[in-house]
Amino acid sequence: MSALFSEADHRYMARALKLAQKGLYTTDPNPRVGCVIVRDDQVVGEGFHLRAGEPHAEIHALNAAGEHAKGATAYVTLEPCSHTGRTGPCAVALLEAKVARVVIAMQDPNPQVSGRGIRLLEEAGIEVAVGLLESEACALNPGFVARMTRQRPFVRLKMAMSLDGRTAMGSGESQWITGPEARAQVQRLRARSSAILSGVESIIMDDSRLTLRADQLQLANAAEAVQRQPLRVILDTRLRLPLAAACLSEPGRTLVITTPAHTAEKRARLIQAGAEIQVLPAGSDGRIDLALMLQWLAEHEQVNELLVETGATLAGALLDAALIDELQLFVAPTLLGGEARPLFALPGLSRMADQRRLTIHDMRAVGRDWRIIASPQTTSATGASGEFSESKVP
Amino acid sequence: MSALFSEADHRYMARALKLAQKGLYTTDPNPRVGCVIVRDDQVVGEGFHLRAGEPHAEIHALNAAGEHAKGATAYVTLEPCSHTGRTGPCAVALLEAKVARVVIAMQDPNPQVSGRGIRLLEEAGIEVAVGLLESEACALNPGFVARMTRQRPFVRLKMAMSLDGRTAMGSGESQWITGPEARAQVQRLRARSSAILSGVESIIMDDSRLTLRADQLQLANAAEAVQRQPLRVILDTRLRLPLAAACLSEPGRTLVITTPAHTAEKRARLIQAGAEIQVLPAGSDGRIDLALMLQWLAEHEQVNELLVETGATLAGALLDAALIDELQLFVAPTLLGGEARPLFALPGLSRMADQRRLTIHDMRAVGRDWRIIASPQTTSATGASGEFSESKVP
Repeated sequence: MSALFSEADHRYMARALKLAQKGLYTTDPNPRVGCVIVRDDQVVGEGFHLRAGEPHAEIHALNAAGEHAKGATAYVTLEPCSHTGRTGPCAVALLEAKVARVVIAMQDPNPQVSGRGIRLLEEAGIEVAVGLLESEACALNPGFVARMTRQRPFVRLKMAMSLDGRTAMGSGESQWITGPEARAQVQRLRARSSAILSGVESIIMDDSRLTLRADQLQLANAAEAVQRQPLRVILDTRLRLPLAAACLSEPGRTLVITTPAHTAEKRARLIQAGAEIQVLPAGSDGRIDLALMLQWLAEHEQVNELLVETGATLAGALLDAALIDELQLFVAPTLLGGEARPLFALPGLSRMADQRRLTIHDMRAVGRDWRIIASPQTTSATGASGEFSESKVP
Repeated sequence: MSALFSEADHRYMARALKLAQKGLYTTDPNPRVGCVIVRDDQVVGEGFHLRAGEPHAEIHALNAAGEHAKGATAYVTLEPCSHTGRTGPCAVALLEAKVARVVIAMQDPNPQVSGRGIRLLEEAGIEVAVGLLESEACALNPGFVARMTRQRPFVRLKMAMSLDGRTAMGSGESQWITGPEARAQVQRLRARSSAILSGVESIIMDDSRLTLRADQLQLANAAEAVQRQPLRVILDTRLRLPLAAACLSEPGRTLVITTPAHTAEKRARLIQAGAEIQVLPAGSDGRIDLALMLQWLAEHEQVNELLVETGATLAGALLDAALIDELQLFVAPTLLGGEARPLFALPGLSRMADQRRLTIHDMRAVGRDWRIIASPQTTSATGASGEFSESKVP
């Protein structure tokens, strides 16, 4: 492997990353991957992975290149696969096309297969170089990376708040804190996520639908993006979800995660109303074990990016358990006062020494509101959001 | 008067504004003013007002220009004075120097004298043009403009908060929310202010000194700036200020504003401890009438810019009374949780319809913290902070 990359290498890999980005809203649960094939400083083929079950990026690019792939360099944002999945191993396709060199941004994060595609290519005598724009490639797939390396989703907490850190009035009244541009951004966060997590208390309060709406996405391919509704996950220890909850009659699945502590009859009524129910063991406090719940979602629902849209209690519990990888705060230029609802309930936090420090990655205007992207300094997050790449870190 | 200004006119007035800025920390209670004298496209003299009692900007510039002032154009950021004050009327000095043209950014905001300097020049046959970079000139002196036109100071509320809108722990513990760069900015806000206002509760809690400290100002002319300590004003309805309060033994004056409802003995003890006492009539709620208090400070203490550094109660009361012209929020990247102290107490605010909307003028990194400059949308403010000119308004 060569550690040295030319200026042209950088340019073509940047192009491959840009192509990968086109799958942001559709590849789930697969990673977003882009590929560019170059011969004699000419792009002869390119492609990206669009949707699970359809060809990988390399296959699209090889098909476009045809005979021109021979002796060419292939730039791929993720290590080509070596397994025979729904589309055949891409590493084999590359060597059969007789490419001379393969440049890879990042190795496959799945420890079970990582490095196999590279070995397969090298053993066939193809020059392989790994690590070009690696962190950018990693940032494209924070969820896939988290699921493969930490066996849990990348957890992104979104909150809409007033400038004095309030999410709703004391009464719960909360409509229209932020403007249409911020709401469109939240729609796009939903669109890139495998699942949306909320607490039952928030659902009871707001009756949120937790769906993608084509008219609010403000995307060229909105119609395509809304074909896949993210899984709605509701934590509901005591099964209080109203049978008439709006989210139960929306397209897509609603999964209620609960504890064993209630009757089968209660469960049956919710299932009839449209919910799926998953019983998970409770923690010592009788509540759903949050770390276990995340693990379960990664393993059984292949959840890559999880968007949390909830109230102060669940948000505080996730923060306390160091399970939040990224915060996206949408700040409206308004004040709701000291009696309004807080952003985070952090019971037991009473000394400055215990404050929860954050790293702010980006702060920018979104319509009349502001968006802050931050991460807790205590998190063990290894992946970073795709949006980090455009950050102006202070 | 001509309404048309050349590109050169803009350039020289911008230079005069820059000179005026040099008096930011020293001219109080006078306005910051700059002057540039130009003949044959050459700067022949320039000056700015440094300190009350010393010559005005025009006099410095005329002295520097000497004979070259004859036939020249004088650029002044504020209408030249026509009254015989401590330094003689500048309008007369300009016409005696036989300048051919005077370009003025803004008229004197004092309705008693506004336009007199201009008339005096015009009657002497000098060409006068008014209004070039007027809003920039106005922004240099928000306090002077407020005092002259609204008979009260420009009120700037500074607060240091966590990202979830908290100023201190529930216990009151509050040290070191923001970093040294933010604290230096607060020192510079103090340095440009005529007075600093606080509530007695905050003083009891934090024992703040409310002084300028040369080592924290991070200014080239820090030693000069700290010669003038802003007046410390403490609102103390029931005279609870501790006799040992740190601010009472600092250089500069501490003025305690109180109501008639207590004994002369109590007042005497505080005076002995170093305070000055001003009794003002209470409002119908028994508390100090805030609007009246501001009026009094403008009239009797010539307070131009008033910096408010206080807790949620007084901050909320000022906001409720629409008496805040500008908010400067220093936001630390940390969370203090729902039990910590709020930014604003706004009792009675319980419906979203009553939320207090703000306009955000600027949001930028200050060390590891962020500074937000905003203004309430209900305020009747006419002046704007000098910092507005560098804003990236969303």
